[in-house]
Amino acid sequence: MGESMRTHYCGDVRAKHVGTTATLCGWVDRRRDHGGVVFLDLRDRAGVVQVVSDPERTPDSYVQAEAVRGEYVVRVTGRVSRRPDESLNPKLPTGEVEIYADRIEVLNGVGKQLPFPISTTETETVRENLRLKYRYLDLRRDRLNRNLRLRHAIVKAIRRYLEDEHQFVEVETPILTRSTPEGARDYLVPSRVNPGEWFALPQSPQLFKQLLMVAGFDRYYQIARCFRDEDLRADRQPEFTQLDMEMSFMSQEGILTLSEALICHIFRTVKGVELPQPFPRLTYADAMARYGCDRPDTRFGLELVDVSDIVKDSGFKVFSGAVKSGGLVKVLPIPGGNDAISNVRIKPGGDLFKEATTAGAKGIAFIRVRDGGNIDTIGAIEDNLTDEQKQELLARTGAEPGHLLLFGAGESTIVNKSLDRLRQVVGAELGLIDPEQLNLLWVTDFPMFEWNADEKRLEALHHPFTAPNPDDLDDLKTARARAFDLVLNGVEIGGGSLRIYQREIQERVFEAIGLAQEEAYAKFGFLLDAFEYGTPPHGGIAYGLDRLAMLIAGEESIRDVIAFPKTQQAACLLTEAPNAVDEKQLGELFVASTYEPDAD
Amino acid sequence: MGESMRTHYCGDVRAKHVGTTATLCGWVDRRRDHGGVVFLDLRDRAGVVQVVSDPERTPDSYVQAEAVRGEYVVRVTGRVSRRPDESLNPKLPTGEVEIYADRIEVLNGVGKQLPFPISTTETETVRENLRLKYRYLDLRRDRLNRNLRLRHAIVKAIRRYLEDEHQFVEVETPILTRSTPEGARDYLVPSRVNPGEWFALPQSPQLFKQLLMVAGFDRYYQIARCFRDEDLRADRQPEFTQLDMEMSFMSQEGILTLSEALICHIFRTVKGVELPQPFPRLTYADAMARYGCDRPDTRFGLELVDVSDIVKDSGFKVFSGAVKSGGLVKVLPIPGGNDAISNVRIKPGGDLFKEATTAGAKGIAFIRVRDGGNIDTIGAIEDNLTDEQKQELLARTGAEPGHLLLFGAGESTIVNKSLDRLRQVVGAELGLIDPEQLNLLWVTDFPMFEWNADEKRLEALHHPFTAPNPDDLDDLKTARARAFDLVLNGVEIGGGSLRIYQREIQERVFEAIGLAQEEAYAKFGFLLDAFEYGTPPHGGIAYGLDRLAMLIAGEESIRDVIAFPKTQQAACLLTEAPNAVDEKQLGELFVASTYEPDAD
Repeated sequence: MGESMRTHYCGDVRAKHVGTTATLCGWVDRRRDHGGVVFLDLRDRAGVVQVVSDPERTPDSYVQAEAVRGEYVVRVTGRVSRRPDESLNPKLPTGEVEIYADRIEVLNGVGKQLPFPISTTETETVRENLRLKYRYLDLRRDRLNRNLRLRHAIVKAIRRYLEDEHQFVEVETPILTRSTPEGARDYLVPSRVNPGEWFALPQSPQLFKQLLMVAGFDRYYQIARCFRDEDLRADRQPEFTQLDMEMSFMSQEGILTLSEALICHIFRTVKGVELPQPFPRLTYADAMARYGCDRPDTRFGLELVDVSDIVKDSGFKVFSGAVKSGGLVKVLPIPGGNDAISNVRIKPGGDLFKEATTAGAKGIAFIRVRDGGNIDTIGAIEDNLTDEQKQELLARTGAEPGHLLLFGAGESTIVNKSLDRLRQVVGAELGLIDPEQLNLLWVTDFPMFEWNADEKRLEALHHPFTAPNPDDLDDLKTARARAFDLVLNGVEIGGGSLRIYQREIQERVFEAIGLAQEEAYAKFGFLLDAFEYGTPPHGGIAYGLDRLAMLIAGEESIRDVIAFPKTQQAACLLTEAPNAVDEKQLGELFVASTYEPDAD
Repeated sequence: MGESMRTHYCGDVRAKHVGTTATLCGWVDRRRDHGGVVFLDLRDRAGVVQVVSDPERTPDSYVQAEAVRGEYVVRVTGRVSRRPDESLNPKLPTGEVEIYADRIEVLNGVGKQLPFPISTTETETVRENLRLKYRYLDLRRDRLNRNLRLRHAIVKAIRRYLEDEHQFVEVETPILTRSTPEGARDYLVPSRVNPGEWFALPQSPQLFKQLLMVAGFDRYYQIARCFRDEDLRADRQPEFTQLDMEMSFMSQEGILTLSEALICHIFRTVKGVELPQPFPRLTYADAMARYGCDRPDTRFGLELVDVSDIVKDSGFKVFSGAVKSGGLVKVLPIPGGNDAISNVRIKPGGDLFKEATTAGAKGIAFIRVRDGGNIDTIGAIEDNLTDEQKQELLARTGAEPGHLLLFGAGESTIVNKSLDRLRQVVGAELGLIDPEQLNLLWVTDFPMFEWNADEKRLEALHHPFTAPNPDDLDDLKTARARAFDLVLNGVEIGGGSLRIYQREIQERVFEAIGLAQEEAYAKFGFLLDAFEYGTPPHGGIAYGLDRLAMLIAGEESIRDVIAFPKTQQAACLLTEAPNAVDEKQLGELFVASTYEPDAD
């Protein structure tokens, strides 16, 4: 610490320093006046230590000690002393000592009323917009400070593991790059030097990392900033950070193995937790069948059961009609649901009804299983199911007395989506989720494409550079991809795939998503060309670093693990960005705003 | 390597592996056919190894060995064997072994003529635009591959040193931020969610890192992407990378000491070079006086000498007039210059004349020093200097027979700039520069402001957050700053300062650069506010990582240490960015291009 204005960090002073003189710098966390003796809790990045001043023992510091207030920045020089036995504070790492202040120097004061309390002893909840406006004060508080340090610890663990154990090389890829909108909207940047033309900010370094494999880099990683101009949902940011990786000459199995080892290393290093290995796996098809969702929270059961075959010929048209028109009928069986969940909640106006209809369902059919295997439901179901069908239903769903069976019937996407929502709400409500549990899960064998009803075309479920399963090449449109997601407690934290490395297959995929040959070449000609110059088999994965840090920190919003986040309206309340700029600036860039506020 | 398609990297096979079976993946670096025996040099990230196939010993691989060509991607399985004594290649780390190929599998071929040779044995110079268009092939070649790996080694050394030895915390700051143009132009990004408003890409994380100090982070660093929309000079990029650091409670001396230790660590780690410490220091005033430049190359002498006082009353009006109008007269004395440099080169039309006039000078006066202290010059000088003035000139400049004295006379900025250029050209030409030498130099005590003649106002020489020297507070306009640059062999590689941390001083600095109070608050209100909530004394430094990597790699352009650089026309030849985008995309962002190509 020789080059610093202090001799120790506040939080590092210990009993072994008793008898020495220390010079400390920091903030006044709290100031108490006990009958003429002033106690200051002095805080810095390492923690808090108690400083004492009184008119008799430390007359030279007493005037200052009287004058300072919370969050003043001070420099204190004093003798490290052992606290009297009755003042020992075993909860504080510095709780055995206190500093008798020979000198207190005010380096900077506080000239305004603090917008919210900062002291480590405060637990007041502050509304988020105020925290965002005064972000530098919020970051000074214990919680965010800890979160940001944890985030750094995670990144450090990642870097060292990949570099030291697996010879990954970090390469920076461009932020000013080419617009190739596919999926989300691009952020655009007008070029002054090439007027009328635009850069785009990257949605991911996907193509660059593939080109690094073509270049023989073999193992690449980057903590990469990415940008998506989306309509912001609860937990998205216009810019976010991903751990981006790509590897050559690796099988899918190889990539999964290495990824698991990395994730285990992170949890071991920053949380001291040993995750069980190997991580469980589900195919996409199984995940959808059992959970109605491709990123299921497997910390609890409540698995869905397909009963389409049982009810397909029943007289209850909602069921039989769903199956006949190509849809399905699935059940969410809820043990103990009879007591826990009333009919009012399931019927129109109820909260569960709303969950289902928000997901697109028309309603929820239900059966309550009573003692002796009797069922209790609406007449239309009761009357239209044969006894055999009823028994089959109970057997298939494992229903016992006390179970509530919630039914979804209709188009499979809607059935799955609505039952997935119900499953999550009910799982949380019934206390089936252990918040301490960490369930990691691979979801594999995603389909290559999904149908975009708006644009009436297939689009890539991951991205159009994902390799199809070689067994499915005959019918690419229904092919499975060599793609995999990593899910933690129902949150997707990573996604990867083997990539296409042959021009012919890449061209077939572009064709499948409706990208005409000429357009494909105009956009991705450099990639298609690269495939002709010796491209190795390769694949990779990207992890959402913000989400991972959020989950490890136990936070519910990624904003709480980002130093300077944007609001859900994509604005920075601290700097007031975005903002209007000079017309001169725009003129130099040959651009103009076409927005007419009055017409809005 | 268990998760990989190979057992070893090519470049890692050694004599100790003889007798084992290896599976290798890589590119065919070279293929030779010696009387029916095919030799393949197989290349991967680790190096090259020789693979052998012939019809008798390895019949199963021979057909493939015959068929492959340069840059094919292959997988080879074979027995590691010791080379015959006559084939040992001590220049190659794998030169003791060769692989008898039991199996050669072509993973991908080459379908087009390579635009330039890639083999490690090739030394052909390729024009840069072709290299940039096929960047993935240029990066596959030895030179760029080595440069990018070196760059990573530098970053790795930096991170670990700052984290492990000095407890720095890495924090990511936003890329989408607020436009505060000061100095260079901002890149702008239209906001869709807040139409009519714009984000700017950061020219540096300056304000955010200062706010992190306000937040108590104490020691921050980031390998940060920065953006400047400048008219591109030889060695600038629209986006570049800096090592960005900020520290609280440190003196300028402390920051310099820590910085030197960091730079020494980098050179020790990646070059095995022990730099002499402490680094020499020059004040800005001394640097300008002695070298005419604030980032002098001190690997050679040729220091400038001010002779204004000697010639101020001479009859030669060029000299006396320069001094009278507030300028100066300086000499670049060149030992041996009489023989090395002809009059033709100094007079109109000559190369040195052009150097001087490009820098703004009207021409170059000169004196040649002959035996016995006689001087040889134009009549106007010869006739208008007294003998005493001549003797003083020779004594002051240390001139001896054979010396050539080049004079600059006029406005000090122009005199310094032109003599600086001449000094550099002559220094290089006379072989005074040892290319192996590494001269690090601190330049300190920069002035706070310089005069912007176009805008007729002072502007900050570094940036307006730089702290003035406390001794100079009475007259801020002429004050020295607590600012310092680090120079390596005449290239500025870093710049830093102590920062203002008091509102009153910050407001005075804004006033000095002509920023009205209201405007200052509109732009930087959050910073001014932050100063009122307990801001610690702090300072920092930023290093140009691209330049540092370039110098350590021995390259002459930063493009050669950036994976995917832009041209001097700010374009990416690989992806063809920037490019025209859909009107629909622009419409969604409420922006339009105002560029009319015809009117250009």
